[in-house]
Amino acid sequence: MNNFEFYNPTRIIFGEGKISELDRVVPKNAKVLILFGGESARKTGTLSEVEQALGSRTFDHFGGIEANPRYETLIKAVDKIEKEGFDFLLAVGGGSVIDGVKFVAAAVNYPGDKWEVVTNRGATIKTALPFGTVLTLPATGSEMNKGSVITREELHSKLAFMSDHVFPQFSILDPVKTYTLPTRQISNGVVDAFVHVIEQYLTYPVNAYVQDAFAEGLLKTLIEIGPKALETPKDYDIRANLMWTATLALNGLIGVGVPQDWSTHMLGHEITVLYGLDHAQTLAIVLPSMLAERLPQKQAKLAQYAERVWGITSGSEQEKALKSIELTRAFFEKMQVGTRFSDYQLTQDVIEPLINSLAAHDMVKLGEHQDIDLVVSRRVYTAAL
Amino acid sequence: MNNFEFYNPTRIIFGEGKISELDRVVPKNAKVLILFGGESARKTGTLSEVEQALGSRTFDHFGGIEANPRYETLIKAVDKIEKEGFDFLLAVGGGSVIDGVKFVAAAVNYPGDKWEVVTNRGATIKTALPFGTVLTLPATGSEMNKGSVITREELHSKLAFMSDHVFPQFSILDPVKTYTLPTRQISNGVVDAFVHVIEQYLTYPVNAYVQDAFAEGLLKTLIEIGPKALETPKDYDIRANLMWTATLALNGLIGVGVPQDWSTHMLGHEITVLYGLDHAQTLAIVLPSMLAERLPQKQAKLAQYAERVWGITSGSEQEKALKSIELTRAFFEKMQVGTRFSDYQLTQDVIEPLINSLAAHDMVKLGEHQDIDLVVSRRVYTAAL
Repeated sequence: MNNFEFYNPTRIIFGEGKISELDRVVPKNAKVLILFGGESARKTGTLSEVEQALGSRTFDHFGGIEANPRYETLIKAVDKIEKEGFDFLLAVGGGSVIDGVKFVAAAVNYPGDKWEVVTNRGATIKTALPFGTVLTLPATGSEMNKGSVITREELHSKLAFMSDHVFPQFSILDPVKTYTLPTRQISNGVVDAFVHVIEQYLTYPVNAYVQDAFAEGLLKTLIEIGPKALETPKDYDIRANLMWTATLALNGLIGVGVPQDWSTHMLGHEITVLYGLDHAQTLAIVLPSMLAERLPQKQAKLAQYAERVWGITSGSEQEKALKSIELTRAFFEKMQVGTRFSDYQLTQDVIEPLINSLAAHDMVKLGEHQDIDLVVSRRVYTAAL
Repeated sequence: MNNFEFYNPTRIIFGEGKISELDRVVPKNAKVLILFGGESARKTGTLSEVEQALGSRTFDHFGGIEANPRYETLIKAVDKIEKEGFDFLLAVGGGSVIDGVKFVAAAVNYPGDKWEVVTNRGATIKTALPFGTVLTLPATGSEMNKGSVITREELHSKLAFMSDHVFPQFSILDPVKTYTLPTRQISNGVVDAFVHVIEQYLTYPVNAYVQDAFAEGLLKTLIEIGPKALETPKDYDIRANLMWTATLALNGLIGVGVPQDWSTHMLGHEITVLYGLDHAQTLAIVLPSMLAERLPQKQAKLAQYAERVWGITSGSEQEKALKSIELTRAFFEKMQVGTRFSDYQLTQDVIEPLINSLAAHDMVKLGEHQDIDLVVSRRVYTAAL
């Protein structure tokens, strides 16, 4: 096992009807800015439930944070807060809204160019406004971690930053809030959570028994409940398990003391930036192709994955490994997420721009061995056509 | 899945040589009291390593905190702190020292009778001195939770309290520090961690897929590494996995959203109080007998445990359940911890005093259904002779 540090102070409040707990966990005299995405937060009644729970506290709204939250939008929230003096933020939505609020919380009162919050990867964040979240879409794990991914449209950049200062103080997870989500968002959420686990698990063995067991437990849970979440949208236990699994997939726990990969995410980000695909769609395209390309480096762990997650007990190590990649692709397809560029009407014309974009963002040494260069990435993209 | 709240702000710093990180995580101008148990902390060099890491900070010692830490000892540390004005505590040792320091941290400046910290179960704790820990003995999980068990000799009481105020600020886990532990402490640690998982897992099914998977992962890890920890004391990865497993066994995570039992602990505490057996020895005596007694209530989950943890695939649900109890007993014996009163030269004369002691401590409604009364407890003790 590798050395590690683990710290995660976010309070999770989990269960049906828990939005009412806002009154307990938001400071009594706070001036609250509620940030959200599209109009669904209002239409589903979640927003008014939140407002009611805030009681007599002063609050205002900032809506319109988009999927792949944009700096250009968020900076308007920063302006509003600096002008009007809010002292507590409340993110109501999924990972995009929460990621956006993390940027806003850190950018308020940030000295100098606020885009540095992102470009310095969070290292120069010294304080942030306190904030909590009301999660409506299980997928990214942002509700219980210190990471955020922000897109700056004008620069064609989609970049991640991390800071202990942007852990949510609390996150309220009410599985019932997911009942009204469109199928596509559930599909995406399952794939996103699945790939989060894979990026922390499918590298090379370091005798981290517990981390492996936890990762395998999350993967098996997603394989079992993912299709059911599509079939029976109002099954409370299925949605509860999906919500908690997606949170644990990226709250830092399973990634301690083990090598991590994240190359699939990096290659996926460029597809979103250039062609606008959903984050999970890009992961579903890149991952099977990446695993096949990295068979030599990942074979031992792929075979373990085949055995423990997919129950494949026969065949050589290589045969098991290959079979597990097939089954992974089939699982994404079963979740109704296409795994090839062609499923999204994209052709080989995309390869060159994607490679150029990786180069522009200095994504030239990726993976757990930092040896995925542009040549390898080109093969991965090409194999995914 | 049941509703839940999860909060755990303890920072874990894990790995060989990490005691040097004290300089980073203890406040620069702190006046530190280092609390420890017997002389092993000094003899092994851990204490001087800690002192060196504290650099120019002012510090003093308080040694002699015993296994099953006693109020009578700890109150002397409280006096010393109130007189001499320490503002940061450092626990160096295992669960007993850490539990003791939690009491001390909460009792300093506690208004009124300090024993109330325990008898009010932590509910009246409003503040506590900040403290960190350097863990030398993997077992109790106290290094990453808010619980503590304190014994008051003169009242024959061993009672638990909990409070968010007594989470350690940080815990340093260096697996190498376990190399010099006596065999008995490793045996006890494995059994203790194992039973912690069992008490949160072996109740009745509530469709908590992830919690079950995590619990099963911890149990399988302990079954695999426990014997190896005895055979090859200086195998770093084995000790690292043991340390991290014992922490995760009782840091709150696997117990969220599921029913919990804890009756084995309660019946065990009385054995320690009256007859001085090690905590883990009492658990090894009570658990197999308790599981057999509770077969009707626990059968579904015992069968799941049999299948997923012990790999038993044939037989009826009841047969699987019974087999898993046998295997649990055999595992404790393999870990060199006796599972019957007779292994400790105790006879049926102990039953009456134990039942009286349970009654005196109001332990008359135990278990996940709160239906383990003194009649049931008597059967459990008797079956363990």
